[in-house]
Amino acid sequence: MAEKWVLMVTAQTPTNIAVIKYWGKRDENLILPINDSISVTLDPQHLCTTTSVAVSPAFTHDRMWLNGKEISLSGGRYQNCLRELRARASDVEDEEKGIKIAKKDWEKLHVHIASYNNFPTAAGLASSAAGFACLVFSLAKLMNVKEDHSKLSAIARQGSGSACRSLYGGFVKWIMGKEENGSDSIAVQLADEKHWGDLVIIIAVVSSRQKETSSTSGMRETVETSMLIEHRAKEVVPRRIIQMEEAIKDHDFPSFSRLACSDSNQFHAVCLDTSPPIFYMNDTSHRIISCIEKWNRFEGTPQVAYTFDAGPNAVLIAHNRNAAKLLLQRLLFYFPPQSDTDLSSYVIGDKSILEDAGVHNMKDIEALAAPPEVKDNTPAQKYKGDVSYFICTRPGKGPVLLNDETKELLNAETGLPN
Amino acid sequence: MAEKWVLMVTAQTPTNIAVIKYWGKRDENLILPINDSISVTLDPQHLCTTTSVAVSPAFTHDRMWLNGKEISLSGGRYQNCLRELRARASDVEDEEKGIKIAKKDWEKLHVHIASYNNFPTAAGLASSAAGFACLVFSLAKLMNVKEDHSKLSAIARQGSGSACRSLYGGFVKWIMGKEENGSDSIAVQLADEKHWGDLVIIIAVVSSRQKETSSTSGMRETVETSMLIEHRAKEVVPRRIIQMEEAIKDHDFPSFSRLACSDSNQFHAVCLDTSPPIFYMNDTSHRIISCIEKWNRFEGTPQVAYTFDAGPNAVLIAHNRNAAKLLLQRLLFYFPPQSDTDLSSYVIGDKSILEDAGVHNMKDIEALAAPPEVKDNTPAQKYKGDVSYFICTRPGKGPVLLNDETKELLNAETGLPN
Repeated sequence: MAEKWVLMVTAQTPTNIAVIKYWGKRDENLILPINDSISVTLDPQHLCTTTSVAVSPAFTHDRMWLNGKEISLSGGRYQNCLRELRARASDVEDEEKGIKIAKKDWEKLHVHIASYNNFPTAAGLASSAAGFACLVFSLAKLMNVKEDHSKLSAIARQGSGSACRSLYGGFVKWIMGKEENGSDSIAVQLADEKHWGDLVIIIAVVSSRQKETSSTSGMRETVETSMLIEHRAKEVVPRRIIQMEEAIKDHDFPSFSRLACSDSNQFHAVCLDTSPPIFYMNDTSHRIISCIEKWNRFEGTPQVAYTFDAGPNAVLIAHNRNAAKLLLQRLLFYFPPQSDTDLSSYVIGDKSILEDAGVHNMKDIEALAAPPEVKDNTPAQKYKGDVSYFICTRPGKGPVLLNDETKELLNAETGLPN
Repeated sequence: MAEKWVLMVTAQTPTNIAVIKYWGKRDENLILPINDSISVTLDPQHLCTTTSVAVSPAFTHDRMWLNGKEISLSGGRYQNCLRELRARASDVEDEEKGIKIAKKDWEKLHVHIASYNNFPTAAGLASSAAGFACLVFSLAKLMNVKEDHSKLSAIARQGSGSACRSLYGGFVKWIMGKEENGSDSIAVQLADEKHWGDLVIIIAVVSSRQKETSSTSGMRETVETSMLIEHRAKEVVPRRIIQMEEAIKDHDFPSFSRLACSDSNQFHAVCLDTSPPIFYMNDTSHRIISCIEKWNRFEGTPQVAYTFDAGPNAVLIAHNRNAAKLLLQRLLFYFPPQSDTDLSSYVIGDKSILEDAGVHNMKDIEALAAPPEVKDNTPAQKYKGDVSYFICTRPGKGPVLLNDETKELLNAETGLPN
């Protein structure tokens, strides 16, 4: 009879975007970086992973489903996370259900994990960061792991480096640490999501036909072959980290923007300095940068910062709602949707920005005027179809437990995916 | 009567492509670089500038025509070259014509200059390098300047940095020098064009809609804003210069290729690390690199090196004729011409490579098989129209005087363009 119970926890974890980039490991297995990094956590309402984890004496082995499809847990990264969590598990008692799990039982009990992203996995939006953060956070809750978020971040780090930064909302620093065992390579919160609530984030998901280099092999090749990466990690990033912390503390958008853009460009520069060279940005990415750079220069002070991860998608951070409105108008002017696209699927997330921009239908997009910074008398070139869609979002909160049973991804009776 | 004569000299000067790049000046006026560079001179039969210079007591001021259109000589770069040459002019006597010019007369006499490129100026093929080299070389001959090519290179350098390397054929090093006045910032020949006669060069002139940053302002911005350029100039390039000299001396193509590709990529990396970032390569450039990298890896040893200057055009250096044939087949497979293009204008220069490749007409291009390194079962993507045309050439000789009167660009009687 005792064999019948299923104990389940469901949690939601955000993704994050680095504004000072992580690129290069000093330890491949423990995932220890060669420099500190700083990120902004994105609002989980628009981009997040939801994970249900369950334990039952009826489970015969650890299993996981990602977006409904069973995947293998045999990889070292999953195994590292599971091992670290089991080692820290505590007694668990659910009086209501009459369940009692002793600390030592966790070594024998198996877990089921179901994870779901509320955004396309293929879009290159750091799904592994949110995914591993959520796996670690939810299992830690299930197993009554009593460590704080910082310690959990060191476990999530072993799943996917940037996952450690998804354990907090707002602005987060991943401290590279010095210890060989990685115990001090942890994430800390610099400021919560309310600290700089004005910022608006628009992500341009860029169409791409290229097969991209995975960030794992990409950063390994950079560390092995780039003649510039060491100088970046040792000389450039440490100064930028200090400056970025100051900029965030002071709400200093010009400095924030300058640092974020420069560091994104330098990350892509060291990718290009890799042998063979790695190209993550494409012509569309370049055009988005040129559009922002021209506008920022025209205004005399930065309105929008851009940053690109290991793919062509642009993450654009607007100073405030007004800048976001003007940004979205520019983006829709240069990158209108294909004629057969539905506007409601072309701009997703926080649609109130679209309202601010005065765009209610496709006609409104066609009617958008060229931005004033386009001073040439030649008509501005448009790139229809080069962006798949836009996501409007903002800085957001960290992981949360979900108590809503309708959000559970595993069946409370069987422990199998719903 | 003595006022009627026109004395003329006509010369031809090659263009060159750097395999260890020049990017960044330590003196903007004298054009002194922050690092040494090494180039290959391209065969003037396919890419060169022809310049006629004339002097006559009838000329009222210095004038210049470029590709038939009069241009201003008032810019500092032209003025620097003209001043330096006049200061070194010697007595000239043409007994046949009964002309006698004393050394001191050159300060008062005016010159006419007509220059013509045998390739499209707009194609971004270092026309200013060949142009200034030819201007300096031909004026030096006209004015009986007795300095050697090395000293002339220091004058050409003041017109356009890379012009100094066009004073020699074959393989050329521009030594950055240490003197504040630039007297030791000169070009020297490492080996002549026969030293490594196997090499075949194919240039892909890439279609581009972007307006490019001029290299003058681009390198200024890089020096001012890149956090990586100093490390490149001081730590990376000096070692590469030594290695590249060795590779050329030893006909060591694997090292030559590795160094040339890495240095091209690093030059573009520091452009990307500039604020605002500079993009010279586009998606087509990236695709050409990927094609070469994949093929080189497949063969186990480099067949072809690539290098890109301040624009999207690829300069591809094949190990030998056989590699060039296989390269051209690949290029035509991935980048076929538009259907309305004439093959004879799509592959220009040394057409014997096209013969080797077995391509005689458009049908032959359509019939080209996918290269064996394309192992995916998916059909290889083709990019019709993304390349404007290809130029097949080779390492070539330095400047020469032309004694053929039909090549003269100025009228022997009037000193005006023909």
